[in-house]
Amino acid sequence: MDDQDYMRRAVELAWLSLGETSPNPNVGCVIAAPGGTIVGEGRTAPAGGPHAEVSALAQAGALARGGTAYVTLEPCDHTGRTGPCTLALIGAGVARVVVGVRDPNPVAAGGAETLRSAGVAVDVGVVLPELARDAMAGWLTAVSRGTPYVIWKFAATLDGRSAAADGTSKWITSPEARADVHRLRAGVDAIIAGNGTVLADDPQLTVRSADGAPAARQPLRVVVGGTRSTPPGSKVFDDSAPTWAVSGGGGRVDLPAMLKELYERGVRTALLEGGPTLAGAFLEAGLVDRVVGYLAPKLLGAGPAALGAAGLSTISEALTLDVVDLARIGPDIRLTAAVKGV
Amino acid sequence: MDDQDYMRRAVELAWLSLGETSPNPNVGCVIAAPGGTIVGEGRTAPAGGPHAEVSALAQAGALARGGTAYVTLEPCDHTGRTGPCTLALIGAGVARVVVGVRDPNPVAAGGAETLRSAGVAVDVGVVLPELARDAMAGWLTAVSRGTPYVIWKFAATLDGRSAAADGTSKWITSPEARADVHRLRAGVDAIIAGNGTVLADDPQLTVRSADGAPAARQPLRVVVGGTRSTPPGSKVFDDSAPTWAVSGGGGRVDLPAMLKELYERGVRTALLEGGPTLAGAFLEAGLVDRVVGYLAPKLLGAGPAALGAAGLSTISEALTLDVVDLARIGPDIRLTAAVKGV
Repeated sequence: MDDQDYMRRAVELAWLSLGETSPNPNVGCVIAAPGGTIVGEGRTAPAGGPHAEVSALAQAGALARGGTAYVTLEPCDHTGRTGPCTLALIGAGVARVVVGVRDPNPVAAGGAETLRSAGVAVDVGVVLPELARDAMAGWLTAVSRGTPYVIWKFAATLDGRSAAADGTSKWITSPEARADVHRLRAGVDAIIAGNGTVLADDPQLTVRSADGAPAARQPLRVVVGGTRSTPPGSKVFDDSAPTWAVSGGGGRVDLPAMLKELYERGVRTALLEGGPTLAGAFLEAGLVDRVVGYLAPKLLGAGPAALGAAGLSTISEALTLDVVDLARIGPDIRLTAAVKGV
Repeated sequence: MDDQDYMRRAVELAWLSLGETSPNPNVGCVIAAPGGTIVGEGRTAPAGGPHAEVSALAQAGALARGGTAYVTLEPCDHTGRTGPCTLALIGAGVARVVVGVRDPNPVAAGGAETLRSAGVAVDVGVVLPELARDAMAGWLTAVSRGTPYVIWKFAATLDGRSAAADGTSKWITSPEARADVHRLRAGVDAIIAGNGTVLADDPQLTVRSADGAPAARQPLRVVVGGTRSTPPGSKVFDDSAPTWAVSGGGGRVDLPAMLKELYERGVRTALLEGGPTLAGAFLEAGLVDRVVGYLAPKLLGAGPAALGAAGLSTISEALTLDVVDLARIGPDIRLTAAVKGV
């Protein structure tokens, strides 16, 4: 195994913690003993629990001495709810630390320098930094600008319809695609939907398994109110997860202020689940970082579009995305794209 | 090399003739000498020219004696513009013929029986028949029902818009996707577009290379007229390819009758290029066999849809397709799907 193999494993561990760690980052860490054997693995525990490095060091014990730690994010250098990871690494006698991505958070940063001062060799951003960045993209983006990373998810037919002409939409996509949406929800801290969608579909907006069982951790549900009020009996207000109903003056919600508030509540990543009007408003305001579209190989030829007005009226203004992944999910297609310039 | 390897090569040859042979099928043929060496290869020449078997036998000469012929379609047993291929194979002393797909055309069929009567061993539909069928799908479908195989091609944004709100659509897709459309056009006998599309975009509807040079063979251009007449100066009426302007009583064209007429004119495969209204009418009438969608990773949120009314008003009526291929073409996505039940 070489540096890349160890870092790849650390990145795998980071992915496993996605959605569980906010407001902390989802970090993965691998400790290799001087002979190269992996003697410890760790990933960030839910907030208040140990960081990845601390878990990995606990597993390694004395075998960490003289070894190398591979960690997706620069080890923290401050005392929050846990002590600084830099001190834990130094105390364990680790000889070298390979860091995927530097910490953009000014409060926690400085770890590389502290380690070097203590005589530890440190490589930052040299070994597969793009993989580490990808696993922690939501957190990194959110922390560097102070608002959550927003993923807009939609489901539509090949011709872009999110429902038929009579309003029916159950189900456009397959059970496999719907299960995949629950996986997507499991990776975020908040699920945002417009009041119109809640009125029309009465969704629960929770993370559930295929048999309907709720996941242990549930994202915050955010209902963006319009002029009409959301009925108190709506599923989104049941006790299966916390819910924040946001309303604004004259029926208009200040979306940037709402996102800022979500960040302050610890939300680093949010999934925007529609409807078309709210998605259009988010896109028009430049508040979407990533788009995940589930396209069913179906045609309707009529019915509401998945995306409503976004202030784009001519072809040269079209919002252009970068496709980062394309997958077949059961009979459907999942397209993941990054909004350019984000 | 084994039977599958030879048949795979024959199928490759069949693909090379796609779009060049109508009303004849695009057939590929490989002759292996008794020792296994390939001594002849052939594919259908444009109508009136030699069939695949005849070309392959000519190349093989005396080396075909005692050998095996691999041919994607059952060799013809009748004398059309060329003599029967069965007699050519028997005359060359071929010992075995491996056939991909039986000929659905009653006039030309019977080849397997004739070969067997002459003492030639014949395997039909045993070696990779699905690959052979795929290469000749358009011709096979057309011949078995007497109307052309219709491919509906559309280009749209991720949210299903074929143009922006102001009508602009140049260019939704990339140069790579547009080049791919020319490849698609090169494989068909006719290109069908509605009068509305001709009025709006003034397309030439020809096969051209990336530098704009026209291909030697051009499909028939079919303009389906509505109530408004197509201006005589439209590019679709230039002298770069033949054009058939179809009009019907009261502005309504009888599409099944039009397709029947196209078949009688030798058209086996046709590419329907829109617009939304004509595509909706084709789909509603069950006249589309395959859908090729070019999806640009762009969002508009407004503008005309790629598909207009197709008589589907509730979700359970949605036309469901089978995705047969998904590819990235430059920055865009190409999705190829078969209409179920076709």
